[in-house]
Amino acid sequence: MGRISVVGLGAMGMGMARALLRAGHEVAGADIDPARVAALATEGGRPVEADTPAQTDILVLVVLNAAQSRAVLGGPNGWLAGLGPGAVVISCATMAPDEARALAAEAEAAGIDYLDAPISGGAVRADEGALSVMAAGSEAAFARAGPALDAMAATVHRLGDAPGAGSAMKAVNQLLAGVHIAAMGEAMTLGMAHGLAPERIVEVISASAGTSWMFENRAPHVVEGDYAPRSAIDIWPKDLGIVCDMADAAGFDPAVARAALAQFRAASAQGLGDVDDAVITRLYAGPAGVRLPGEG
Amino acid sequence: MGRISVVGLGAMGMGMARALLRAGHEVAGADIDPARVAALATEGGRPVEADTPAQTDILVLVVLNAAQSRAVLGGPNGWLAGLGPGAVVISCATMAPDEARALAAEAEAAGIDYLDAPISGGAVRADEGALSVMAAGSEAAFARAGPALDAMAATVHRLGDAPGAGSAMKAVNQLLAGVHIAAMGEAMTLGMAHGLAPERIVEVISASAGTSWMFENRAPHVVEGDYAPRSAIDIWPKDLGIVCDMADAAGFDPAVARAALAQFRAASAQGLGDVDDAVITRLYAGPAGVRLPGEG
Repeated sequence: MGRISVVGLGAMGMGMARALLRAGHEVAGADIDPARVAALATEGGRPVEADTPAQTDILVLVVLNAAQSRAVLGGPNGWLAGLGPGAVVISCATMAPDEARALAAEAEAAGIDYLDAPISGGAVRADEGALSVMAAGSEAAFARAGPALDAMAATVHRLGDAPGAGSAMKAVNQLLAGVHIAAMGEAMTLGMAHGLAPERIVEVISASAGTSWMFENRAPHVVEGDYAPRSAIDIWPKDLGIVCDMADAAGFDPAVARAALAQFRAASAQGLGDVDDAVITRLYAGPAGVRLPGEG
Repeated sequence: MGRISVVGLGAMGMGMARALLRAGHEVAGADIDPARVAALATEGGRPVEADTPAQTDILVLVVLNAAQSRAVLGGPNGWLAGLGPGAVVISCATMAPDEARALAAEAEAAGIDYLDAPISGGAVRADEGALSVMAAGSEAAFARAGPALDAMAATVHRLGDAPGAGSAMKAVNQLLAGVHIAAMGEAMTLGMAHGLAPERIVEVISASAGTSWMFENRAPHVVEGDYAPRSAIDIWPKDLGIVCDMADAAGFDPAVARAALAQFRAASAQGLGDVDDAVITRLYAGPAGVRLPGEG
Protein backbone atom coordinates (compact mmCIF):
# COMPACT_ATOMS: atom_id res chain seq x y z
CA MET A 1 0.00 0.00 0.00
CA GLY A 2 1.26 3.46 -0.81
CA ARG A 3 2.08 6.51 1.25
CA ILE A 4 -0.48 9.12 0.27
CA SER A 5 -0.81 12.73 1.40
CA VAL A 6 -4.07 14.63 1.09
CA VAL A 7 -3.68 18.41 1.18
CA GLY A 8 -6.98 20.19 1.70
CA LEU A 9 -9.37 18.53 4.14
CA GLY A 10 -12.66 20.21 3.32
CA ALA A 11 -15.72 18.02 2.89
CA MET A 12 -14.34 16.54 -0.32
CA GLY A 13 -10.74 16.07 0.83
CA MET A 14 -11.81 14.56 4.16
CA GLY A 15 -14.05 12.07 2.41
CA MET A 16 -11.28 11.15 -0.01
CA ALA A 17 -8.79 10.70 2.87
CA ARG A 18 -11.25 8.38 4.62
CA ALA A 19 -11.73 6.34 1.45
CA LEU A 20 -7.93 6.03 1.14
CA LEU A 21 -7.60 4.92 4.77
CA ARG A 22 -10.32 2.30 4.32
CA ALA A 23 -8.42 0.94 1.32
CA GLY A 24 -5.42 0.34 3.59
CA HIS A 25 -3.15 3.18 2.55
CA GLU A 26 -0.86 5.15 4.88
CA VAL A 27 -2.57 8.55 4.74
CA ALA A 28 -1.17 11.90 5.85
CA GLY A 29 -3.45 14.94 5.90
CA ALA A 30 -2.84 18.68 5.85
CA ASP A 31 -5.17 21.66 6.01
CA ILE A 32 -4.99 25.30 7.08
CA ASP A 33 -7.57 24.41 9.73
CA PRO A 34 -5.85 22.32 12.47
CA ALA A 35 -9.25 21.03 13.66
CA ARG A 36 -9.69 19.19 10.38
CA VAL A 37 -6.24 17.67 10.61
CA ALA A 38 -7.03 16.56 14.17
CA ALA A 39 -10.34 15.08 13.00
CA LEU A 40 -8.54 13.01 10.40
CA ALA A 41 -5.99 11.91 13.01
CA THR A 42 -8.78 10.34 15.09
CA GLU A 43 -9.51 8.13 12.08
CA GLY A 44 -5.90 7.09 11.60
CA GLY A 45 -4.52 9.83 9.36
CA ARG A 46 -1.09 11.26 10.18
CA PRO A 47 -1.06 15.06 10.67
CA VAL A 48 1.32 16.97 8.42
CA GLU A 49 1.77 20.63 7.53
CA ALA A 50 0.56 21.91 4.17
CA ASP A 51 3.83 23.77 3.75
CA THR A 52 6.07 20.85 4.70
CA PRO A 53 6.22 18.07 2.15
CA ALA A 54 5.77 14.64 3.73
CA GLN A 55 7.42 11.43 2.59
CA THR A 56 4.84 10.47 0.07
CA ASP A 57 4.27 8.56 -3.17
CA ILE A 58 1.03 10.24 -4.12
CA LEU A 59 -0.02 13.81 -3.32
CA VAL A 60 -3.77 14.35 -3.61
CA LEU A 61 -4.31 18.09 -3.87
CA VAL A 62 -7.89 19.10 -2.99
CA VAL A 63 -7.53 22.80 -2.27
CA LEU A 64 -9.87 25.53 -3.47
CA ASN A 65 -8.33 26.81 -6.67
CA ALA A 66 -5.25 27.23 -8.87
CA ALA A 67 -3.63 29.83 -6.59
CA GLN A 68 -3.80 27.55 -3.57
CA SER A 69 -2.58 24.61 -5.64
CA ARG A 70 0.41 26.67 -6.78
CA ALA A 71 1.11 27.83 -3.22
CA VAL A 72 1.25 24.22 -2.01
CA LEU A 73 3.31 22.91 -4.92
CA GLY A 74 5.73 25.72 -5.75
CA GLY A 75 8.68 27.52 -4.27
CA PRO A 76 11.83 26.21 -2.61
CA ASN A 77 9.86 24.69 0.30
CA GLY A 78 6.95 23.47 -1.82
CA TRP A 79 5.84 19.90 -2.31
CA LEU A 80 7.30 19.65 -5.81
CA ALA A 81 10.75 20.29 -4.32
CA GLY A 82 10.10 17.89 -1.45
CA LEU A 83 8.50 14.96 -3.24
CA GLY A 84 10.93 12.28 -4.32
CA PRO A 85 11.35 10.86 -7.81
CA GLY A 86 8.54 8.51 -8.76
CA ALA A 87 5.92 10.58 -6.97
CA VAL A 88 2.76 11.82 -8.63
CA VAL A 89 0.51 14.80 -7.97
CA ILE A 90 -3.25 14.25 -8.40
CA SER A 91 -4.57 17.79 -8.81
CA CYS A 92 -8.31 17.96 -8.04
CA ALA A 93 -9.08 21.68 -7.71
CA THR A 94 -11.26 23.22 -10.40
CA MET A 95 -9.09 25.57 -12.46
CA ALA A 96 -8.67 26.84 -16.01
CA PRO A 97 -6.94 24.40 -18.40
CA ASP A 98 -4.09 26.91 -18.83
CA GLU A 99 -3.40 26.81 -15.12
CA ALA A 100 -3.44 23.02 -15.13
CA ARG A 101 -0.97 22.95 -18.01
CA ALA A 102 1.32 25.42 -16.22
CA LEU A 103 1.31 23.40 -13.00
CA ALA A 104 1.90 20.19 -14.94
CA ALA A 105 4.91 21.75 -16.66
CA GLU A 106 6.36 22.83 -13.33
CA ALA A 107 5.86 19.34 -11.92
CA GLU A 108 7.47 17.79 -14.97
CA ALA A 109 10.44 20.15 -14.64
CA ALA A 110 10.83 18.88 -11.07
CA GLY A 111 10.69 15.26 -12.26
CA ILE A 112 7.24 14.68 -10.76
CA ASP A 113 4.31 13.17 -12.66
CA TYR A 114 1.12 15.21 -12.69
CA LEU A 115 -2.47 14.20 -13.23
CA ASP A 116 -4.95 16.95 -14.14
CA ALA A 117 -7.83 15.34 -12.28
CA PRO A 118 -10.83 17.44 -11.23
CA ILE A 119 -13.49 15.56 -9.33
CA SER A 120 -17.28 15.46 -9.36
CA GLY A 121 -19.85 13.84 -7.14
CA GLY A 122 -20.07 15.73 -3.85
CA ALA A 123 -19.03 14.97 -0.29
CA VAL A 124 -21.22 11.89 0.16
CA ARG A 125 -19.67 10.11 -2.79
CA ALA A 126 -16.20 11.27 -1.73
CA ASP A 127 -16.81 9.50 1.58
CA GLU A 128 -17.91 6.39 -0.27
CA GLY A 129 -14.86 6.36 -2.53
CA ALA A 130 -17.30 6.78 -5.41
CA LEU A 131 -16.27 10.04 -7.08
CA SER A 132 -16.10 10.72 -10.79
CA VAL A 133 -12.68 11.90 -11.90
CA MET A 134 -12.08 13.74 -15.19
CA ALA A 135 -8.42 13.02 -15.70
CA ALA A 136 -5.66 13.76 -18.19
CA GLY A 137 -1.96 12.98 -17.93
CA SER A 138 0.80 10.67 -19.07
CA GLU A 139 0.60 6.89 -18.88
CA ALA A 140 3.15 7.08 -16.07
CA ALA A 141 1.02 9.56 -14.14
CA PHE A 142 -2.06 7.35 -14.49
CA ALA A 143 -0.10 4.27 -13.45
CA ARG A 144 1.36 5.93 -10.37
CA ALA A 145 -1.96 7.52 -9.40
CA GLY A 146 -3.80 4.23 -9.86
CA PRO A 147 -3.85 3.02 -6.23
CA ALA A 148 -5.34 6.32 -5.03
CA LEU A 149 -7.83 6.59 -7.91
CA ASP A 150 -8.97 3.01 -7.26
CA ALA A 151 -9.79 3.92 -3.66
CA MET A 152 -11.39 7.32 -4.34
CA ALA A 153 -13.30 6.97 -7.59
CA ALA A 154 -16.14 4.93 -9.01
CA THR A 155 -15.40 6.27 -12.48
CA VAL A 156 -12.21 7.66 -13.99
CA HIS A 157 -12.86 9.37 -17.31
CA ARG A 158 -9.49 9.17 -19.10
CA LEU A 159 -9.21 12.21 -21.34
CA GLY A 160 -5.83 11.66 -22.92
CA ASP A 161 -2.23 12.41 -22.07
CA ALA A 162 -2.31 16.21 -22.22
CA PRO A 163 -3.00 17.95 -18.88
CA GLY A 164 -5.72 20.58 -19.30
CA ALA A 165 -8.32 18.22 -20.78
CA GLY A 166 -9.51 17.19 -17.32
CA SER A 167 -9.94 20.81 -16.30
CA ALA A 168 -11.68 21.63 -19.59
CA MET A 169 -14.22 18.84 -19.06
CA LYS A 170 -14.78 19.93 -15.47
CA ALA A 171 -15.50 23.46 -16.71
CA VAL A 172 -18.04 22.09 -19.19
CA ASN A 173 -19.70 20.20 -16.35
CA GLN A 174 -19.71 23.24 -14.07
CA LEU A 175 -21.21 25.48 -16.74
CA LEU A 176 -24.14 23.11 -17.03
CA ALA A 177 -24.47 22.34 -13.33
CA GLY A 178 -24.39 26.01 -12.28
CA VAL A 179 -26.90 27.05 -14.94
CA HIS A 180 -29.18 24.16 -14.02
CA ILE A 181 -29.21 25.14 -10.33
CA ALA A 182 -30.13 28.75 -11.10
CA ALA A 183 -32.78 27.58 -13.58
CA MET A 184 -34.16 25.30 -10.86
CA GLY A 185 -34.60 28.34 -8.63
CA GLU A 186 -36.36 30.27 -11.38
CA ALA A 187 -38.61 27.34 -12.28
CA MET A 188 -39.62 26.56 -8.70
CA THR A 189 -40.46 30.22 -8.14
CA LEU A 190 -42.42 30.48 -11.39
CA GLY A 191 -44.50 27.45 -10.52
CA MET A 192 -45.14 28.43 -6.91
CA ALA A 193 -46.02 32.02 -7.90
CA HIS A 194 -48.67 30.50 -10.16
CA GLY A 195 -50.14 28.28 -7.51
CA LEU A 196 -48.34 24.96 -7.93
CA ALA A 197 -47.26 23.00 -4.85
CA PRO A 198 -43.46 22.68 -4.79
CA GLU A 199 -43.51 18.93 -4.15
CA ARG A 200 -45.81 18.46 -7.14
CA ILE A 201 -43.43 20.48 -9.34
CA VAL A 202 -40.56 18.18 -8.34
CA GLU A 203 -42.65 15.10 -9.01
CA VAL A 204 -43.88 16.16 -12.45
CA ILE A 205 -40.70 17.81 -13.73
CA SER A 206 -38.50 14.90 -12.63
CA ALA A 207 -40.54 12.78 -15.06
CA SER A 208 -40.49 15.38 -17.86
CA ALA A 209 -38.16 16.80 -20.50
CA GLY A 210 -37.31 19.74 -18.24
CA THR A 211 -35.45 17.63 -15.74
CA SER A 212 -31.75 17.70 -14.92
CA TRP A 213 -29.46 15.93 -12.46
CA MET A 214 -29.21 19.19 -10.52
CA PHE A 215 -32.97 19.77 -10.54
CA GLU A 216 -33.58 16.33 -9.07
CA ASN A 217 -30.81 16.80 -6.51
CA ARG A 218 -31.42 20.41 -5.43
CA ALA A 219 -35.16 21.07 -5.83
CA PRO A 220 -35.91 18.68 -2.91
CA HIS A 221 -33.82 20.97 -0.69
CA VAL A 222 -36.27 23.75 -1.55
CA VAL A 223 -39.27 21.50 -0.91
CA GLU A 224 -37.83 20.53 2.48
CA GLY A 225 -36.65 24.07 3.30
CA ASP A 226 -33.29 22.50 4.13
CA TYR A 227 -30.31 24.67 3.17
CA ALA A 228 -27.64 22.93 5.24
CA PRO A 229 -24.72 23.27 2.84
CA ARG A 230 -24.06 20.11 0.85
CA SER A 231 -22.60 22.36 -1.83
CA ALA A 232 -22.39 26.08 -1.09
CA ILE A 233 -23.31 29.16 -3.12
CA ASP A 234 -19.69 30.38 -3.09
CA ILE A 235 -18.53 27.54 -5.33
CA TRP A 236 -20.35 29.13 -8.24
CA PRO A 237 -18.90 32.66 -8.48
CA LYS A 238 -15.54 30.85 -8.59
CA ASP A 239 -16.40 28.05 -11.02
CA LEU A 240 -18.69 30.03 -13.34
CA GLY A 241 -16.07 32.78 -13.24
CA ILE A 242 -13.55 30.30 -14.64
CA VAL A 243 -16.12 29.21 -17.24
CA CYS A 244 -16.77 32.78 -18.38
CA ASP A 245 -13.05 33.57 -18.50
CA MET A 246 -12.49 30.48 -20.63
CA ALA A 247 -15.31 31.49 -22.96
CA ASP A 248 -13.92 35.02 -23.22
CA ALA A 249 -10.53 33.56 -24.10
CA ALA A 250 -12.21 31.45 -26.77
CA GLY A 251 -13.97 34.50 -28.19
CA PHE A 252 -17.63 33.79 -27.44
CA ASP A 253 -20.18 35.09 -24.95
CA PRO A 254 -21.82 32.38 -22.83
CA ALA A 255 -24.83 34.57 -22.12
CA VAL A 256 -26.78 32.01 -20.13
CA ALA A 257 -23.85 30.98 -17.94
CA ARG A 258 -23.03 34.65 -17.43
CA ALA A 259 -26.57 35.33 -16.25
CA ALA A 260 -26.28 32.44 -13.80
CA LEU A 261 -22.91 33.77 -12.56
CA ALA A 262 -24.54 37.13 -11.82
CA GLN A 263 -27.23 35.40 -9.75
CA PHE A 264 -24.72 33.49 -7.63
CA ARG A 265 -22.65 36.63 -7.11
CA ALA A 266 -25.79 38.44 -5.96
CA ALA A 267 -26.62 35.62 -3.55
CA SER A 268 -23.09 35.72 -2.17
CA ALA A 269 -23.29 39.50 -1.78
CA GLN A 270 -26.48 38.98 0.23
CA GLY A 271 -24.50 36.92 2.72
CA LEU A 272 -25.62 33.52 1.44
CA GLY A 273 -22.16 32.35 0.38
CA ASP A 274 -21.91 29.56 2.94
CA VAL A 275 -25.48 28.34 2.43
CA ASP A 276 -26.54 25.40 0.26
CA ASP A 277 -26.72 26.53 -3.36
CA ALA A 278 -30.41 25.59 -3.64
CA VAL A 279 -30.99 28.81 -1.67
CA ILE A 280 -30.53 30.65 -4.98
CA THR A 281 -34.31 30.13 -5.21
CA ARG A 282 -34.72 32.81 -2.54
CA LEU A 283 -33.33 35.45 -4.93
CA TYR A 284 -36.38 34.94 -7.14
CA ALA A 285 -38.97 34.02 -4.52
CA GLY A 286 -38.31 37.18 -2.50
CA PRO A 287 -39.32 39.74 -5.16
CA ALA A 288 -42.19 37.47 -6.24
CA GLY A 289 -43.57 37.38 -2.70
CA VAL A 290 -43.46 33.58 -2.78
CA ARG A 291 -43.00 32.04 0.66
CA LEU A 292 -40.71 29.05 0.35
CA PRO A 293 -41.15 25.98 2.56
CA GLY A 294 -39.47 26.45 5.94
CA GLU A 295 -39.61 30.24 5.75
CA GLY A 296 -41.54 32.28 8.32
CA MET B 1 -65.49 4.47 -29.35
CA GLY B 2 -65.85 8.21 -29.44
CA ARG B 3 -65.98 10.77 -32.19
CA ILE B 4 -62.85 12.83 -31.81
CA SER B 5 -61.69 15.87 -33.77
CA VAL B 6 -58.07 16.94 -33.82
CA VAL B 7 -57.54 20.58 -34.82
CA GLY B 8 -53.91 21.32 -35.62
CA LEU B 9 -52.07 18.60 -37.55
CA GLY B 10 -48.45 19.60 -37.05
CA ALA B 11 -46.00 16.92 -36.02
CA MET B 12 -47.58 16.63 -32.58
CA GLY B 13 -51.22 16.76 -33.69
CA MET B 14 -50.65 14.29 -36.52
CA GLY B 15 -49.01 11.83 -34.15
CA MET B 16 -51.87 12.21 -31.70
CA ALA B 17 -54.46 11.69 -34.44
CA ARG B 18 -52.68 8.49 -35.51
CA ALA B 19 -52.62 7.22 -31.93
CA LEU B 20 -56.36 7.93 -31.67
CA LEU B 21 -57.06 6.09 -34.93
CA ARG B 22 -55.04 3.08 -33.76
CA ALA B 23 -57.13 2.99 -30.60
CA GLY B 24 -60.24 2.59 -32.74
CA HIS B 25 -61.75 6.05 -32.49
CA GLU B 26 -63.55 7.90 -35.30
CA VAL B 27 -61.08 10.72 -35.93
CA ALA B 28 -61.65 13.92 -37.86
CA GLY B 29 -58.73 16.24 -38.56
CA ALA B 30 -58.42 19.91 -39.44
CA ASP B 31 -55.46 22.12 -40.25
CA ILE B 32 -54.79 25.34 -42.16
CA ASP B 33 -52.56 23.23 -44.43
CA PRO B 34 -54.81 21.03 -46.62
CA ALA B 35 -51.88 18.70 -47.36
CA ARG B 36 -51.79 17.68 -43.72
CA VAL B 37 -55.52 17.01 -43.69
CA ALA B 38 -55.12 14.92 -46.84
CA ALA B 39 -52.23 13.02 -45.25
CA LEU B 40 -54.38 12.11 -42.30
CA ALA B 41 -57.20 11.06 -44.64
CA THR B 42 -54.93 8.43 -46.20
CA GLU B 43 -54.66 6.91 -42.73
CA GLY B 44 -58.39 6.88 -42.08
CA GLY B 45 -59.03 10.35 -40.65
CA ARG B 46 -62.03 12.31 -41.90
CA PRO B 47 -61.16 15.78 -43.28
CA VAL B 48 -62.96 18.68 -41.64
CA GLU B 49 -62.50 22.44 -41.67
CA ALA B 50 -60.91 24.16 -38.69
CA ASP B 51 -63.61 26.83 -38.83
CA THR B 52 -66.52 24.39 -39.12
CA PRO B 53 -67.25 22.42 -35.97
CA ALA B 54 -67.70 18.71 -36.65
CA GLN B 55 -70.02 16.36 -34.84
CA THR B 56 -67.68 15.42 -32.09
CA ASP B 57 -67.50 14.27 -28.47
CA ILE B 58 -63.90 15.29 -27.85
CA LEU B 59 -62.05 18.20 -29.45
CA VAL B 60 -58.28 17.89 -29.20
CA LEU B 61 -56.86 21.34 -29.83
CA VAL B 62 -53.17 21.22 -30.81
CA VAL B 63 -52.64 24.61 -32.42
CA LEU B 64 -49.68 26.92 -31.84
CA ASN B 65 -50.79 29.26 -29.08
CA ALA B 66 -53.60 30.92 -27.14
CA ALA B 67 -54.60 33.20 -30.02
CA GLN B 68 -55.09 30.29 -32.41
CA SER B 69 -56.93 28.34 -29.72
CA ARG B 70 -59.28 31.25 -29.21
CA ALA B 71 -59.79 31.64 -32.96
CA VAL B 72 -60.84 28.00 -33.27
CA LEU B 73 -63.07 27.96 -30.20
CA GLY B 74 -64.71 31.38 -30.12
CA GLY B 75 -67.18 33.45 -32.07
CA PRO B 76 -70.60 32.56 -33.47
CA ASN B 77 -69.15 29.97 -35.86
CA GLY B 78 -66.55 28.63 -33.45
CA TRP B 79 -66.32 25.11 -32.08
CA LEU B 80 -67.69 26.09 -28.66
CA ALA B 81 -70.90 27.15 -30.37
CA GLY B 82 -70.94 24.06 -32.57
CA LEU B 83 -70.06 21.33 -30.09
CA GLY B 84 -73.02 19.64 -28.50
CA PRO B 85 -73.66 19.27 -24.77
CA GLY B 86 -71.49 16.62 -23.18
CA ALA B 87 -68.51 17.49 -25.34
CA VAL B 88 -65.07 18.28 -23.92
CA VAL B 89 -62.18 20.39 -25.20
CA ILE B 90 -58.68 19.08 -24.55
CA SER B 91 -56.54 22.18 -24.96
CA CYS B 92 -52.88 21.26 -25.62
CA ALA B 93 -51.25 24.49 -26.82
CA THR B 94 -48.69 26.08 -24.53
CA MET B 95 -50.17 29.30 -23.15
CA ALA B 96 -50.17 31.46 -20.05
CA PRO B 97 -52.36 30.16 -17.20
CA ASP B 98 -54.50 33.31 -17.44
CA GLU B 99 -55.30 32.49 -21.05
CA ALA B 100 -56.17 28.91 -20.11
CA ARG B 101 -58.51 30.14 -17.38
CA ALA B 102 -60.18 32.58 -19.76
CA LEU B 103 -60.77 29.90 -22.42
CA ALA B 104 -62.03 27.49 -19.77
CA ALA B 105 -64.51 30.10 -18.56
CA GLU B 106 -65.78 30.65 -22.10
CA ALA B 107 -66.17 26.92 -22.60
CA GLU B 108 -68.02 26.57 -19.32
CA ALA B 109 -70.34 29.43 -20.31
CA ALA B 110 -71.14 27.47 -23.48
CA GLY B 111 -71.84 24.32 -21.45
CA ILE B 112 -68.67 22.59 -22.67
CA ASP B 113 -66.14 20.91 -20.38
CA TYR B 114 -62.55 22.07 -20.74
CA LEU B 115 -59.29 20.38 -19.87
CA ASP B 116 -56.20 22.60 -19.57
CA ALA B 117 -53.84 19.94 -20.89
CA PRO B 118 -50.48 20.95 -22.33
CA ILE B 119 -48.40 18.08 -23.65
CA SER B 120 -44.74 17.10 -23.49
CA GLY B 121 -42.68 14.42 -25.16
CA GLY B 122 -42.11 15.36 -28.79
CA ALA B 123 -43.41 14.03 -32.08
CA VAL B 124 -42.02 10.52 -31.71
CA ARG B 125 -43.89 9.92 -28.48
CA ALA B 126 -46.99 11.58 -29.89
CA ASP B 127 -46.93 8.95 -32.65
CA GLU B 128 -46.54 6.21 -30.07
CA GLY B 129 -49.45 7.46 -27.97
CA ALA B 130 -46.91 7.96 -25.20
CA LEU B 131 -47.08 11.69 -24.40
CA SER B 132 -46.98 13.27 -20.98
CA VAL B 133 -49.98 15.46 -20.29
CA MET B 134 -50.02 18.12 -17.57
CA ALA B 135 -53.73 18.46 -17.01
CA ALA B 136 -56.15 20.39 -14.85
CA GLY B 137 -59.94 20.50 -15.02
CA SER B 138 -63.14 19.27 -13.45
CA GLU B 139 -63.87 15.62 -12.71
CA ALA B 140 -66.38 15.73 -15.55
CA ALA B 141 -63.76 17.09 -17.96
CA PHE B 142 -61.29 14.36 -17.01
CA ALA B 143 -63.97 11.69 -17.32
CA ARG B 144 -65.08 12.85 -20.76
CA ALA B 145 -61.51 13.31 -21.98
CA GLY B 146 -60.48 9.88 -20.69
CA PRO B 147 -60.84 7.86 -23.91
CA ALA B 148 -58.63 10.31 -25.82
CA LEU B 149 -56.07 10.67 -23.02
CA ASP B 150 -55.83 6.88 -22.75
CA ALA B 151 -54.92 6.66 -26.42
CA MET B 152 -52.53 9.62 -26.56
CA ALA B 153 -50.66 9.63 -23.26
CA ALA B 154 -48.37 7.37 -21.30
CA THR B 155 -48.67 9.66 -18.28
CA VAL B 156 -51.38 12.09 -17.26
CA HIS B 157 -50.25 14.36 -14.43
CA ARG B 158 -53.51 15.39 -12.75
CA LEU B 159 -52.99 18.86 -11.32
CA GLY B 160 -56.35 19.54 -9.74
CA ASP B 161 -59.69 20.89 -10.86
CA ALA B 162 -58.69 24.48 -11.63
CA PRO B 163 -57.72 25.15 -15.27
CA GLY B 164 -54.42 27.07 -15.41
CA ALA B 165 -52.43 24.59 -13.34
CA GLY B 166 -51.62 22.49 -16.41
CA SER B 167 -50.38 25.56 -18.27
CA ALA B 168 -48.38 26.70 -15.23
CA MET B 169 -46.61 23.34 -14.99
CA LYS B 170 -45.92 23.36 -18.72
CA ALA B 171 -44.33 26.81 -18.36
CA VAL B 172 -42.12 25.51 -15.53
CA ASN B 173 -41.05 22.66 -17.80
CA GLN B 174 -40.39 24.96 -20.75
CA LEU B 175 -38.31 27.36 -18.65
CA LEU B 176 -36.03 24.49 -17.71
CA ALA B 177 -36.01 22.80 -21.10
CA GLY B 178 -35.23 26.00 -23.00
CA VAL B 179 -32.48 27.04 -20.61
CA HIS B 180 -30.98 23.55 -20.73
CA ILE B 181 -30.83 23.58 -24.55
CA ALA B 182 -29.05 26.93 -24.64
CA ALA B 183 -26.68 25.80 -21.87
CA MET B 184 -25.96 22.67 -23.91
CA GLY B 185 -24.88 24.88 -26.81
CA GLU B 186 -22.62 26.94 -24.55
CA ALA B 187 -21.13 23.87 -22.90
CA MET B 188 -20.43 22.02 -26.15
CA THR B 189 -18.76 25.12 -27.56
CA LEU B 190 -16.70 25.68 -24.41
CA GLY B 191 -15.42 22.12 -24.45
CA MET B 192 -14.68 22.04 -28.17
CA ALA B 193 -12.95 25.43 -28.05
CA HIS B 194 -10.68 23.92 -25.41
CA GLY B 195 -9.85 20.83 -27.41
CA LEU B 196 -12.39 18.24 -26.25
CA ALA B 197 -13.98 15.92 -28.80
CA PRO B 198 -17.75 16.50 -28.89
CA GLU B 199 -18.64 12.81 -28.60
CA ARG B 200 -16.43 12.54 -25.53
CA ILE B 201 -18.19 15.54 -23.95
CA VAL B 202 -21.54 13.83 -24.45
CA GLU B 203 -20.23 10.60 -23.00
CA VAL B 204 -18.67 12.13 -19.87
CA ILE B 205 -21.34 14.75 -19.13
CA SER B 206 -24.20 12.28 -19.56
CA ALA B 207 -22.66 10.39 -16.61
CA SER B 208 -21.99 13.52 -14.55
CA ALA B 209 -23.83 16.04 -12.39
CA GLY B 210 -24.02 18.47 -15.33
CA THR B 211 -26.41 16.33 -17.31
CA SER B 212 -30.01 17.07 -18.22
CA TRP B 213 -32.72 15.37 -20.24
CA MET B 214 -32.25 18.03 -22.93
CA PHE B 215 -28.46 17.68 -22.93
CA GLU B 216 -28.74 13.94 -23.50
CA ASN B 217 -31.40 14.43 -26.17
CA ARG B 218 -29.97 17.41 -28.09
CA ALA B 219 -26.16 17.24 -27.75
CA PRO B 220 -26.10 14.11 -29.97
CA HIS B 221 -27.65 16.22 -32.74
CA VAL B 222 -24.57 18.45 -32.51
CA VAL B 223 -22.21 15.46 -32.50
CA GLU B 224 -23.95 14.08 -35.59
CA GLY B 225 -24.26 17.49 -37.27
CA ASP B 226 -27.94 16.62 -37.81
CA TYR B 227 -30.28 19.59 -37.48
CA ALA B 228 -33.35 18.08 -39.14
CA PRO B 229 -36.04 19.69 -36.99
CA ARG B 230 -37.38 17.37 -34.32
CA SER B 231 -38.18 20.49 -32.30
CA ALA B 232 -37.51 23.85 -33.93
CA ILE B 233 -35.83 27.02 -32.68
CA ASP B 234 -39.05 29.02 -33.12
CA ILE B 235 -40.78 27.16 -30.29
CA TRP B 236 -38.54 28.94 -27.80
CA PRO B 237 -39.11 32.65 -28.45
CA LYS B 238 -42.79 31.78 -28.01
CA ASP B 239 -42.55 29.53 -24.94
CA LEU B 240 -39.78 31.41 -23.11
CA GLY B 241 -41.67 34.60 -23.95
CA ILE B 242 -44.67 33.20 -22.08
CA VAL B 243 -42.35 32.19 -19.22
CA CYS B 244 -40.85 35.68 -18.94
CA ASP B 245 -44.26 37.34 -19.14
CA MET B 246 -45.48 35.07 -16.34
CA ALA B 247 -42.43 35.93 -14.24
CA ASP B 248 -42.95 39.64 -14.89
CA ALA B 249 -46.56 39.29 -13.77
CA ALA B 250 -45.34 37.54 -10.62
CA GLY B 251 -42.85 40.34 -9.94
CA PHE B 252 -39.49 38.61 -10.37
CA ASP B 253 -36.80 38.62 -13.02
CA PRO B 254 -35.92 35.16 -14.39
CA ALA B 255 -32.48 36.33 -15.51
CA VAL B 256 -31.25 32.98 -16.77
CA ALA B 257 -34.42 32.19 -18.73
CA ARG B 258 -34.36 35.72 -20.14
CA ALA B 259 -30.79 35.22 -21.35
CA ALA B 260 -31.84 31.97 -23.03
CA LEU B 261 -34.82 33.72 -24.64
CA ALA B 262 -32.46 36.33 -26.13
CA GLN B 263 -30.32 33.56 -27.64
CA PHE B 264 -33.28 31.83 -29.31
CA ARG B 265 -34.56 35.16 -30.63
CA ALA B 266 -31.12 35.83 -32.08
CA ALA B 267 -31.06 32.41 -33.72
CA SER B 268 -34.51 33.00 -35.19
CA ALA B 269 -33.42 36.42 -36.47
CA GLN B 270 -30.52 34.69 -38.21
CA GLY B 271 -32.99 32.60 -40.18
CA LEU B 272 -32.67 29.46 -38.09
CA GLY B 273 -36.28 29.44 -36.86
CA ASP B 274 -37.26 26.25 -38.69
CA VAL B 275 -34.07 24.38 -37.79
CA ASP B 276 -33.68 21.89 -34.94
CA ASP B 277 -33.13 23.78 -31.71
CA ALA B 278 -29.77 22.09 -31.10
CA VAL B 279 -28.49 24.50 -33.78
CA ILE B 280 -28.38 27.15 -31.02
CA THR B 281 -24.85 25.81 -30.56
CA ARG B 282 -23.87 27.58 -33.79
CA LEU B 283 -24.54 30.97 -32.13
CA TYR B 284 -21.64 30.30 -29.78
CA ALA B 285 -19.41 28.19 -32.02
CA GLY B 286 -19.36 30.83 -34.77
CA PRO B 287 -17.69 33.63 -32.78
CA ALA B 288 -15.41 31.08 -31.10
CA GLY B 289 -14.21 29.81 -34.46
CA VAL B 290 -15.21 26.28 -33.48
CA ARG B 291 -16.12 24.11 -36.45
CA LEU B 292 -19.06 21.93 -35.51
CA PRO B 293 -19.44 18.40 -36.89
CA GLY B 294 -21.04 18.42 -40.34
CA GLU B 295 -20.00 21.99 -41.07
CA GLY B 296 -17.73 22.89 -43.94
